[in-house]
Amino acid sequence: MKNYKLTLCYDGTRYNGWQKQGNTKNTIQEKLEVLLTKLLGRETEVAGSGRTDAGVHAYAQVCSFRAESEISCDELLSQIRRYLPEDIGAISLETVPDRFHARLSARSKTYIYRIWAGTEPNVFERKYLYFVDVLPDIDKMRQAAQALTGEHDFSSFCANSHMKKSAVRVLESIEITRLGNEIRFSLTGSGFLYNMVRIIVGTLLEVGWGKRPVESVKAALEAKSRVMAGFTAPPQGLSLYEIKY
Amino acid sequence: MKNYKLTLCYDGTRYNGWQKQGNTKNTIQEKLEVLLTKLLGRETEVAGSGRTDAGVHAYAQVCSFRAESEISCDELLSQIRRYLPEDIGAISLETVPDRFHARLSARSKTYIYRIWAGTEPNVFERKYLYFVDVLPDIDKMRQAAQALTGEHDFSSFCANSHMKKSAVRVLESIEITRLGNEIRFSLTGSGFLYNMVRIIVGTLLEVGWGKRPVESVKAALEAKSRVMAGFTAPPQGLSLYEIKY
Repeated sequence: MKNYKLTLCYDGTRYNGWQKQGNTKNTIQEKLEVLLTKLLGRETEVAGSGRTDAGVHAYAQVCSFRAESEISCDELLSQIRRYLPEDIGAISLETVPDRFHARLSARSKTYIYRIWAGTEPNVFERKYLYFVDVLPDIDKMRQAAQALTGEHDFSSFCANSHMKKSAVRVLESIEITRLGNEIRFSLTGSGFLYNMVRIIVGTLLEVGWGKRPVESVKAALEAKSRVMAGFTAPPQGLSLYEIKY
Repeated sequence: MKNYKLTLCYDGTRYNGWQKQGNTKNTIQEKLEVLLTKLLGRETEVAGSGRTDAGVHAYAQVCSFRAESEISCDELLSQIRRYLPEDIGAISLETVPDRFHARLSARSKTYIYRIWAGTEPNVFERKYLYFVDVLPDIDKMRQAAQALTGEHDFSSFCANSHMKKSAVRVLESIEITRLGNEIRFSLTGSGFLYNMVRIIVGTLLEVGWGKRPVESVKAALEAKSRVMAGFTAPPQGLSLYEIKY
């Protein structure tokens, strides 16, 4: 039995996110498992590094799966590429030690969130951007973001109010850069709660637009209550960017 | 009566090209004229710098139109932006001297053609690239391209075999650059015949793949016969990039 590590990219626009669960149809995991089951000739399940929501993209999503197969990684990768739909791509495939697990072995993840601020058009990247009319104040957002880095209970920045497990996570960094009309948030951390990146981005945008003071972000964090944070930025601006093992 | 110069960008994927003609539905020109007629309150026709084929994109297409209107360019541009579909964008709008005409005043045009060579995926730009499995020889293509620059009768590189007008055009430059998996052809000239860029790219690719010798491109040009040139590269890799006036 070999253990495989597969790195994928996808345009998440037309999918119901990564994870198949219950009656959720049209997930990326499902597409992949159906294909691998056919190619490998036996029921194959993959473990993703984590979920991505409906409409969220990935520059590099990692998953692992076990299979008994005689064909080489190159040949299997070539077959996977041939049959994946055009909005899912296979970047690499390798065999890894038995203990490797895409989710459990992950040390850190980086998400990026892309915003297009202003009325100038960007038709070619429109499915990967959140369009806003007003340019937010970058300095204010950077100041507010400082309160969020480090180890915290991120309950206020989690969409799942019934979560029983710990909401403590380590957010290593939040970088905010601007290049012309594009503002890019880059968040790296040990793990992320449900909608956490999108709620953080929405809250920082409210600061950048002057709708809430810089200090309110620290207060929201300490309140451990979702209603104290800002809106959930829409999914199309978000991409899973990198996973470190 | 004011004369307007409007610069547009578009993702041409779902359109039947720029130009409305006869029963051709769903063209970019038609979308624009319907919108301008509504906004300006009277039948408005636009003159494009030239046609783009079905599925071809534009970073910058220019058109001109005349209108009697009291509203400012900024306000009209803002309204155009509000009502254009998401795959057509308005870059700028200005009033220009009466003698300006988007097609007749154009001095040169630049098209780019983008190829993705290799089996690595590029899901995010897939609608703007022509995917090929085999990397063509760049040096050979550059050598062959030299025969095409300058003033020539480009009949061999024109899809319209019944053209009665002159097929003489000045091709100022063909630049071929490679960045990783992407190969980019950039062609600048006084004007282009029907499918001319796509036939030139297809012919150069055949040279780059060793399917025809470098010298055959010069021979094809001199033959003034479409059958002597190569295949027509597909539309999605092509974009109208810049028009100089």
